[in-house]
Amino acid sequence: MVGKNKDQQIGFVKTKYYNAPANEKFVLESGASISELKIAYETYGELNEERANAILICHALSGDAHAAGYHTDEKKPGWWDEMVGPGKAFDTDKYFVICSNVIGGCKGSSGPNSINPSTGKPYGLSFPIVSIKDMVRAQKKLIEFLGIKRLMSVAGGSMGGMQALEWAVSYPKEVVSCIPIATSFKHSAQQIAFDEVARQAIMADPVWNGGDYYGREHPSAGLSVARMIGHVTYMSDKSMEEKFGRALKKKELGYEFTTEFEVEGYLRYRGDSFVKRFDANTYLYLTKAMDYFDMENDKGIGQVFKGVKSRFLVIAFSSDWLYLPEKSKKIVKALKLNGIDVTYCEISSDYGHDAFLVKSPEETKLIKHFLSSTRKKIKK
Amino acid sequence: MVGKNKDQQIGFVKTKYYNAPANEKFVLESGASISELKIAYETYGELNEERANAILICHALSGDAHAAGYHTDEKKPGWWDEMVGPGKAFDTDKYFVICSNVIGGCKGSSGPNSINPSTGKPYGLSFPIVSIKDMVRAQKKLIEFLGIKRLMSVAGGSMGGMQALEWAVSYPKEVVSCIPIATSFKHSAQQIAFDEVARQAIMADPVWNGGDYYGREHPSAGLSVARMIGHVTYMSDKSMEEKFGRALKKKELGYEFTTEFEVEGYLRYRGDSFVKRFDANTYLYLTKAMDYFDMENDKGIGQVFKGVKSRFLVIAFSSDWLYLPEKSKKIVKALKLNGIDVTYCEISSDYGHDAFLVKSPEETKLIKHFLSSTRKKIKK
Repeated sequence: MVGKNKDQQIGFVKTKYYNAPANEKFVLESGASISELKIAYETYGELNEERANAILICHALSGDAHAAGYHTDEKKPGWWDEMVGPGKAFDTDKYFVICSNVIGGCKGSSGPNSINPSTGKPYGLSFPIVSIKDMVRAQKKLIEFLGIKRLMSVAGGSMGGMQALEWAVSYPKEVVSCIPIATSFKHSAQQIAFDEVARQAIMADPVWNGGDYYGREHPSAGLSVARMIGHVTYMSDKSMEEKFGRALKKKELGYEFTTEFEVEGYLRYRGDSFVKRFDANTYLYLTKAMDYFDMENDKGIGQVFKGVKSRFLVIAFSSDWLYLPEKSKKIVKALKLNGIDVTYCEISSDYGHDAFLVKSPEETKLIKHFLSSTRKKIKK
Repeated sequence: MVGKNKDQQIGFVKTKYYNAPANEKFVLESGASISELKIAYETYGELNEERANAILICHALSGDAHAAGYHTDEKKPGWWDEMVGPGKAFDTDKYFVICSNVIGGCKGSSGPNSINPSTGKPYGLSFPIVSIKDMVRAQKKLIEFLGIKRLMSVAGGSMGGMQALEWAVSYPKEVVSCIPIATSFKHSAQQIAFDEVARQAIMADPVWNGGDYYGREHPSAGLSVARMIGHVTYMSDKSMEEKFGRALKKKELGYEFTTEFEVEGYLRYRGDSFVKRFDANTYLYLTKAMDYFDMENDKGIGQVFKGVKSRFLVIAFSSDWLYLPEKSKKIVKALKLNGIDVTYCEISSDYGHDAFLVKSPEETKLIKHFLSSTRKKIKK
């Protein structure tokens, strides 16, 4: 809710915090509970009088509440600034956009790096396992706190898309439309496998120490390897080839175990910069939540979206080999089996899974039109 | 050279060793050299009088000289026992099959875990970086020692295929035919990236200690993560889905960071069993050799196989997403541009890159017929 400048920028923003009442327990899907639930969030644009223009944006594994605009100490804007702002896909001149850090996260919401009120120390691995449903239920509390009864839309990519799908199922009357991007209603064995290797990389780091490292050295080496694994899966073979190919950092091969290829340098850089801003335990919790996520279970695909009332825009990217377009098509099939209004678009892109974070005029248009038509339906 | 039993088995075999003359230096592509080159090898079948039926099999990253038959202490046979033996693809009733552990390896050949004669201690990272060409040149010494002037065929999958290609280029007159399987004449950025993440996983393990860990605890945690990364890339999404899907090891989710999904258990098992038989430094050396391998360089694809005399059978697998069939097609194109006799076959398989190690009646037939026709050409 900060003024924009002329060139489609939101300008400076601040993260705010929702605190659940002190005596209220937040019970998780596992049966475990936490007290003093805290959710970090940001908002952009203004809520209209009818309180009918709110859009919730859900972040992916490495995201946070800071989707757009700048914090005063930042040179880079929020993670989806390309898409959120005046005149952008999620147009803050028209809509009230909310983004919150998930429960289990490490950027201000209750999670393994937050203080356990009953001990006064960081939770570490004593923080209970959270599910995608728990993330959504925590967001619901925030939305209620903000005085919003119904969301015009819930949108997100990857893990954010899982939350969007879960919103539509958990709160059918409260979600007018839903935009799941580059996502799936359940992880495949291969996706679980990549996550498990990343978790093993973190847990193999002796500094991790069973998750008990706060106030001491953090397991940077393990988390960096985990992030590098992720990065390779987020890019496409083609985009890596175009960006790096076999280019060397030096003039010629040095016959030593240093960083020699550009692609090696890039991965190390991405790993190193990630560990400065992210918590290793949160990486474990969020990958686990994604692996647990399974909207189908033994019910069969026809039952996944039973009772859902929202209209859908499902987006996938042609070169995404982690969340393959065929996974998005399964979402579409499951929706169609319930006669739900759904538009599907596979965007041609070389950026792999990361395409959902990259500026795309096509994606912008799709979302703009979808939101516009959703708004018209509400007004009728 | 051990008697077979009735059911297409080679029976018991022993690893043998070639030792270069004590005063002979083996100079590597980097310019560095080692003394007292040692190469571990096995042979199956008998060399014929004309010494014209020898086939060299080259192993992949995790392989060794023990391609077929059983060592006396083993329950499992060599790594390509499905393909090598009486009546099999590489028919030991007809051919004299040789397999050697590469230089840089950890199973008896000179490598980082072998003793540096000048210090009396294991080399560790003081072992010079080796290239695919160095592997081939070391094999050439072994072949000469065995009294063989010309190989009827050189075959191998993955890193073994790179060696096969290098043989055809380095020794055009000495290689009658060549069978590169699921391989490439240069690694792509994505392949380098996966290798680099695996190397980082090893080097992130403090026990690795700059490669100096022999006689102490080995960096099992890091090597295990490296192997798990590899494993996920060797299998296809489909084969993982069919083998594991989302099956659990227990009755239900336990909401804890233990091994819960079958696929997690499988990966940990594969990681744990690998560290018992493989050396972490060798993993670094061999992935580096593969990443360095580039037959094209700046020459252009038409120059890659210039001067090559061998005939080729190039095999790829439909679901191999690490060494994509299109990489094999590039080999074929590069060969055709030089008018070289080449047969290409893409075998339909769900096993991903690992398909080259799995029993395949189709692959067996292809290789059998190709070797037969090669033998006929020699006899003419």
